[in-house]
Amino acid sequence: MGKTVCFGELMLRLTPPASLLLRQANDLNVSFAGAEANVAVALKNLGNESAFVSKYAQNPIGEASVQCLRAFGVDTRFFLPAEGRMGLYYYEKGAGARSARVVYDRAGSVFVLSKEEDYDWEEIFADADWFHFSGITPALGGEMPAILLTAAKAAAGMGVCVSCDVNYRAALWSKERARKGMETLLPYVKVCAGAEDLFAEEGEPLEETDARLRKRFGIELFVHAKRRMLSATRTQYGVVLCGREGTYASPMYELDIVDRLGCGDAMFAGLIHAYKTGKGLAETASFAAAVGALKHSTDGDFSYAKEADVYAFLSGGNGGRVQR
Amino acid sequence: MGKTVCFGELMLRLTPPASLLLRQANDLNVSFAGAEANVAVALKNLGNESAFVSKYAQNPIGEASVQCLRAFGVDTRFFLPAEGRMGLYYYEKGAGARSARVVYDRAGSVFVLSKEEDYDWEEIFADADWFHFSGITPALGGEMPAILLTAAKAAAGMGVCVSCDVNYRAALWSKERARKGMETLLPYVKVCAGAEDLFAEEGEPLEETDARLRKRFGIELFVHAKRRMLSATRTQYGVVLCGREGTYASPMYELDIVDRLGCGDAMFAGLIHAYKTGKGLAETASFAAAVGALKHSTDGDFSYAKEADVYAFLSGGNGGRVQR
Amino acid sequence: MGKTVCFGELMLRLTPPASLLLRQANDLNVSFAGAEANVAVALKNLGNESAFVSKYAQNPIGEASVQCLRAFGVDTRFFLPAEGRMGLYYYEKGAGARSARVVYDRAGSVFVLSKEEDYDWEEIFADADWFHFSGITPALGGEMPAILLTAAKAAAGMGVCVSCDVNYRAALWSKERARKGMETLLPYVKVCAGAEDLFAEEGEPLEETDARLRKRFGIELFVHAKRRMLSATRTQYGVVLCGREGTYASPMYELDIVDRLGCGDAMFAGLIHAYKTGKGLAETASFAAAVGALKHSTDGDFSYAKEADVYAFLSGGNGGRVQR
Amino acid sequence: MGKTVCFGELMLRLTPPASLLLRQANDLNVSFAGAEANVAVALKNLGNESAFVSKYAQNPIGEASVQCLRAFGVDTRFFLPAEGRMGLYYYEKGAGARSARVVYDRAGSVFVLSKEEDYDWEEIFADADWFHFSGITPALGGEMPAILLTAAKAAAGMGVCVSCDVNYRAALWSKERARKGMETLLPYVKVCAGAEDLFAEEGEPLEETDARLRKRFGIELFVHAKRRMLSATRTQYGVVLCGREGTYASPMYELDIVDRLGCGDAMFAGLIHAYKTGKGLAETASFAAAVGALKHSTDGDFSYAKEADVYAFLSGGNGGRVQR
Amino acid sequence: MGKTVCFGELMLRLTPPASLLLRQANDLNVSFAGAEANVAVALKNLGNESAFVSKYAQNPIGEASVQCLRAFGVDTRFFLPAEGRMGLYYYEKGAGARSARVVYDRAGSVFVLSKEEDYDWEEIFADADWFHFSGITPALGGEMPAILLTAAKAAAGMGVCVSCDVNYRAALWSKERARKGMETLLPYVKVCAGAEDLFAEEGEPLEETDARLRKRFGIELFVHAKRRMLSATRTQYGVVLCGREGTYASPMYELDIVDRLGCGDAMFAGLIHAYKTGKGLAETASFAAAVGALKHSTDGDFSYAKEADVYAFLSGGNGGRVQR
Amino acid sequence: MGKTVCFGELMLRLTPPASLLLRQANDLNVSFAGAEANVAVALKNLGNESAFVSKYAQNPIGEASVQCLRAFGVDTRFFLPAEGRMGLYYYEKGAGARSARVVYDRAGSVFVLSKEEDYDWEEIFADADWFHFSGITPALGGEMPAILLTAAKAAAGMGVCVSCDVNYRAALWSKERARKGMETLLPYVKVCAGAEDLFAEEGEPLEETDARLRKRFGIELFVHAKRRMLSATRTQYGVVLCGREGTYASPMYELDIVDRLGCGDAMFAGLIHAYKTGKGLAETASFAAAVGALKHSTDGDFSYAKEADVYAFLSGGNGGRVQR
Repeated sequence: MGKTVCFGELMLRLTPPASLLLRQANDLNVSFAGAEANVAVALKNLGNESAFVSKYAQNPIGEASVQCLRAFGVDTRFFLPAEGRMGLYYYEKGAGARSARVVYDRAGSVFVLSKEEDYDWEEIFADADWFHFSGITPALGGEMPAILLTAAKAAAGMGVCVSCDVNYRAALWSKERARKGMETLLPYVKVCAGAEDLFAEEGEPLEETDARLRKRFGIELFVHAKRRMLSATRTQYGVVLCGREGTYASPMYELDIVDRLGCGDAMFAGLIHAYKTGKGLAETASFAAAVGALKHSTDGDFSYAKEADVYAFLSGGNGGRVQR
Repeated sequence: MGKTVCFGELMLRLTPPASLLLRQANDLNVSFAGAEANVAVALKNLGNESAFVSKYAQNPIGEASVQCLRAFGVDTRFFLPAEGRMGLYYYEKGAGARSARVVYDRAGSVFVLSKEEDYDWEEIFADADWFHFSGITPALGGEMPAILLTAAKAAAGMGVCVSCDVNYRAALWSKERARKGMETLLPYVKVCAGAEDLFAEEGEPLEETDARLRKRFGIELFVHAKRRMLSATRTQYGVVLCGREGTYASPMYELDIVDRLGCGDAMFAGLIHAYKTGKGLAETASFAAAVGALKHSTDGDFSYAKEADVYAFLSGGNGGRVQR
Repeated sequence: MGKTVCFGELMLRLTPPASLLLRQANDLNVSFAGAEANVAVALKNLGNESAFVSKYAQNPIGEASVQCLRAFGVDTRFFLPAEGRMGLYYYEKGAGARSARVVYDRAGSVFVLSKEEDYDWEEIFADADWFHFSGITPALGGEMPAILLTAAKAAAGMGVCVSCDVNYRAALWSKERARKGMETLLPYVKVCAGAEDLFAEEGEPLEETDARLRKRFGIELFVHAKRRMLSATRTQYGVVLCGREGTYASPMYELDIVDRLGCGDAMFAGLIHAYKTGKGLAETASFAAAVGALKHSTDGDFSYAKEADVYAFLSGGNGGRVQR
Repeated sequence: MGKTVCFGELMLRLTPPASLLLRQANDLNVSFAGAEANVAVALKNLGNESAFVSKYAQNPIGEASVQCLRAFGVDTRFFLPAEGRMGLYYYEKGAGARSARVVYDRAGSVFVLSKEEDYDWEEIFADADWFHFSGITPALGGEMPAILLTAAKAAAGMGVCVSCDVNYRAALWSKERARKGMETLLPYVKVCAGAEDLFAEEGEPLEETDARLRKRFGIELFVHAKRRMLSATRTQYGVVLCGREGTYASPMYELDIVDRLGCGDAMFAGLIHAYKTGKGLAETASFAAAVGALKHSTDGDFSYAKEADVYAFLSGGNGGRVQR
Repeated sequence: MGKTVCFGELMLRLTPPASLLLRQANDLNVSFAGAEANVAVALKNLGNESAFVSKYAQNPIGEASVQCLRAFGVDTRFFLPAEGRMGLYYYEKGAGARSARVVYDRAGSVFVLSKEEDYDWEEIFADADWFHFSGITPALGGEMPAILLTAAKAAAGMGVCVSCDVNYRAALWSKERARKGMETLLPYVKVCAGAEDLFAEEGEPLEETDARLRKRFGIELFVHAKRRMLSATRTQYGVVLCGREGTYASPMYELDIVDRLGCGDAMFAGLIHAYKTGKGLAETASFAAAVGALKHSTDGDFSYAKEADVYAFLSGGNGGRVQR
Repeated sequence: MGKTVCFGELMLRLTPPASLLLRQANDLNVSFAGAEANVAVALKNLGNESAFVSKYAQNPIGEASVQCLRAFGVDTRFFLPAEGRMGLYYYEKGAGARSARVVYDRAGSVFVLSKEEDYDWEEIFADADWFHFSGITPALGGEMPAILLTAAKAAAGMGVCVSCDVNYRAALWSKERARKGMETLLPYVKVCAGAEDLFAEEGEPLEETDARLRKRFGIELFVHAKRRMLSATRTQYGVVLCGREGTYASPMYELDIVDRLGCGDAMFAGLIHAYKTGKGLAETASFAAAVGALKHSTDGDFSYAKEADVYAFLSGGNGGRVQR
């Protein structure tokens, strides 16, 4: 099985301890996070090879960001230093009736200022069989859309499966701009999450949207996260996969939330893991949902779940055992 | 709109981290709290002007207490230094089946030893249109009842609306003493919470008590917090307002509790805010309940909710969104 | 009322803060724990005299372990220093769907290497009326089974009531070995928990198992903890006692979990306390369940509940009051 | 005595705990700092009125920055919110042979993007008698040089004394650019520190440089900090003032360093305080040096020294007393 | 060798972490301290039996104070609960040029309100051969002087050696009152530190003062701590003993200071230990100074030094070894 | 330039925060350390390739130990999992007059139980040009001496330069046993530190010992660390190298100590770095001493110094600059 290459931004994440507000915090916990890096780490912890391709600031903060990925064994040969600043965000956890809040400060980061010539995709994909990116990356502007197009084409040309989590963020671009941005990329994408947020027509059933987009872009597998937040610290969560062979839904779990961020990325890593190992869609949906569900119970954006943890969860565990 | 003047004691609050017991704690978190100061801070965060009138110990602890109010922009011109000690309390959070516990050490504080001549109410109320105090203050004894009587009379004479949260505490005074203490003050009070704890007759419906007390004291608006604790960390919560124009109840919310203290004070601030801006009783009840509900999700006694946070909550939020 | 002597191992317990994983932790919280020491501490906090008999490593870690028991007033005259290592374990709290995990590192500890001649049971039981141990201790091997046999015989001979929490751990010994190990000890045991895990026959109702074992070993009172974990942080919990005079069950409580460890030990201490003071089985079951239930809300293995806390809980408290 | 108006940028400062490196830190301590804000806070703690004029980001980080100044009573009426990002820097304390390190991330902050029309200097200086800025501010570029020129002219025109700490930073601008930038501003400056770093000619004695610049720009008082670092945690420190009436030097102190940042700003505040109260240059030099020296012993950029603390230090205290 | 009975107040000590000011602290470290309790703990750690006689507040803070002494094995049978408050103080460590600061809040504590009948000295001294108190205790007023007189008389009558650390504090009583207070107690004292602060005549050499007081009160051994603070974190320290057989001085050590408090108490415990074991005055002075010197390197008021640590220090160790 | 292969044990290091004693600590800081792993990390930070060969426990603690090395980019392909326990030690930092203390708990670790067949040295040395180990490893017993002999022979046979830090520890083996143990290994060693601790004859000048051992074992370069501890937190430190071409000494530095452990390992890494890049002995001595000196200023056992940091130190920096 080859490597999964993930391309996107890794940011410094600053989080007040426990349930403190940003306005109350005297200390901020340091971690690093980014949709695609989250997928790379989650894959490594599940036992897959993964690589992270990006830029980091050539200063101690940037170096710490490299350390944090290398610690998991993610291949960082193409995670390159550059003069400039590290994108960052502040994350205020929600609690009970109070919503979580993310304050971004990512403009002008070394990643966003990347140039097309910075990335040699032939070399990058040399030992890869999968390429993953999210819709956040083209939304960042600059040369990102062009870089991604080059990358996606190169991947497709080299027989590397391309996946995309559309992850539409209204704060980054309008639906119209997002649609245009994604339309150039989706023809290369085989596995896609969240396309419906941009392309569903009003009142259209989800399966029809998927069928329409499958025809239009050639996407093979549609991923739909099902989430219903009960409060800032409790949610229902499940996954629906829609492939040519039909639609398969995981169970809906009701989950306490330790950390809300990165759950979708963990789920996507679970999906890649299951899909690569040739599991059917039903089992893939269950596995992906389980990885996503378990992520809710872990601090930070990263999933630490191993394959054995996932199977323990799937075999009826509700978290209630003490493993000795 | 004028200032709301709040008069009472600000204490040092010492809280073990997370769910530790006082007997287990190696560190105590420092904050400052007091029923009336809580109202002043909550009002500022909602966008109102407020002033806090009191005494603080002329030492680094007292100075820190002034800093903590000034940080929010509360007017502290009449929060005055004095030689002596700062009142304090230890707060052990409850968890699950274990009740929270407050250990007071407030006797002989510089506030309790205040003298009538320490406060020039004409000057204090110069730019005020509201005066708030709680029933805890006269319960502290010394010259407090006399000081409050002078203050309430002055306020009434200057057209400043007077509100009181009776907040009956059996540990501070007997019901009999409390009734006597409040009877001299209530004739000046227009908005009153918790009067029923002292003056309700057995079996008397709440609205009848209110009607009786309205006649007796001239109180215009009665405030009733509705709370049913499900455990130390989960509660039902709502507000009922009873005015001449009728009785209005907010929804009952079911809430996870991050910090149990100060919720009633936050609610009262919400009420003052809504009432001052001319909202009807139904909307005032909802707004006040929302501020109180949100406070349950924030550490410390202080409410940080802004008006926008309250409206987001009221427009259907259960805390489940991540604000980006 | 005499002392309760508890014999077993006290280990260093290292716990990541809050909900962090062991792989994420930069600091580990230090506490000390062990089934029998937990009982000794819980008894002291309930107002009983207790002694802890064991060995500790003659180094600062071992000295800290003695300090931690002495702090509660547990008699440590027979908690003796020895050259060697302190057993320890790492405890990763569970959260939501993620199970808690215990990683043991207790092999070769100074306690496990104890010799029979290290303990003078006549002197140890001089002022005792109860002797408690758990099935973990004989499972540790070495001279432990022989030491315990000597101790149990001495206790029985001196009229000291013997209790045992079988606490079967598959990781320590097979069921077969455990059965053999316990069969030599149970004839001296009057109060026994968890015997059914080793001796129940398939499909046999619990009361029949108890009746059979009562006849075989002379056990007077059987203790059964009833637990159904709803997640890693929520459980149902209750106690069933089966004595000659019949079977009595406490209510089943639904509890938030702050710390899962030591709850069974706290419950057993509650049982000893109630039993020693001559309460009937129904009341004993309720009291024991209440101590166990309250322990779920406290960090660490130790129960801090006082008798008054237990009665407050039993008189209808669900933890929702703030004690002022 | 009027207010001292300070104009510059307030940044978020993120500091690893104790002696940890940025690459090692799991938490970063939150404080706020900036040369001119440091002066404003130090002045308030010495008992003077001060105002801080700047822009802050309209998000929780920016709001926390306002809170932190208001806590000290600094006038923040002209510290205004704007959409955008908060400048920040990471500060790695030095230790022994290892140098301290500052990593800036301040480009594109809301302050730097200020426009001339954002500041109404007539209103700002209405109750002021002193205006302070540093050479860092014009070095930030954008409209800053123009804004400062307007401000300095307005101040001079309103009889407000202007002071400037040139504080040359090679990382921000070249000496040539800095000279040009400062030449337009210095004609309005009466009290100036660090001019020699830009304008001294090679080999020229300090007093001659001062005399030359006095003639050229009309500066009345030149301030020279004397520092010789012995290690990252130990320094010699003193102040030399050069006015028309002569040159006056404080003693050189040998000091342990708790926090190296903000000492020059504290010293400048001490100078303003002494100068405003009409002290002679000798006493002013001593007072300023004492405030700077004491700052070395306090965490963060802010000076907490009160006038009484300064006099205690000057009256022979080496820090060795315990104040009871 | 019998017990050393120590009588005085045990207070809650609240200390900001590291070098933070009280005005900056968000958390306060919890410990317990008091001159006589410090001696009791230091003695236990040196291997002596000791008892602490006092009152504690019957609440979780008071209970924690008992736990903290019991942890060391100090006999707390006569450390009795009472309704009321726990005395406390805030301790701001000094650093470099900044002095340490103690803010007391001890008025009206349960100890200060003790009554004579609360203490049964015959029972207390039953297994004692030494009684230690400090001059702080009679300075607290109330019945303390009378209680101490009764205690000292009882001790003397029972052949228990009485020691006193005069420890004159100007903030507690005037020199005149202190002289009167001590004059009634000193006739019972055999070993006394700090008498010269009250009774030395101007210009009188120390040995003459001692000779005069020996004659007047019958004191056998005079203890003089020699300290010269070089900064808040560095000091010179030594001990001089003056007995009938002559005057003996320890070396003067130059010491880094981790925690300045409790060093004199540690030294006094070292003296009692050495004196009781029959060492000569020269060796006693060295031993006492070594215990005091080592205390400077340990956080909190308590000395943890064992006899072996003291001898290692005396045998030429400057702290530079790593003990493996 | 090839890889440096380091073989030895990596242990969990548990350290109380700041200056707390092990008996006082409520939390222990987690890091990982071991003489040879320290060298591997220090080399990576200097810009060299390094590999660490060892065993780790197949549990979360062991996995964290792998993460910590991978974070730096150390090659961990031959750092292999095994069932069992992780060796660990507790480190109590010294302060002033109080010595640091290490409490080991490393017996029976997965590393110590390694078998010869676990390591395939041909494969391990495939891309290596240097092999480093310390005398601690053969001292651990079991098959370690045999494993090391095989490794050293293999290295020598493959032209890989072998270095050894004898690092004699009396607690692990007697001088006699150590001499025997090292005598079989030293014939393969080219660069050796600390040989004189085992092989120097009484009164023999250091250079003569080196000459004698050079003749006997064929060692090319002798490394001598010069250290004189002034207190637990201050030391003098330098390096002397003795090669065929003569003896070269670095300056002696006087250094504040943040963390005493790992300084010799950092120095050895500096030596390997300088030696490999063909520097002369004088420059090599200076470079090695500088890396060792800088390590004193960093928490934990690992050196974070980059080549540029070392040159900045060597070019006259005493740590006094702030790098911006």
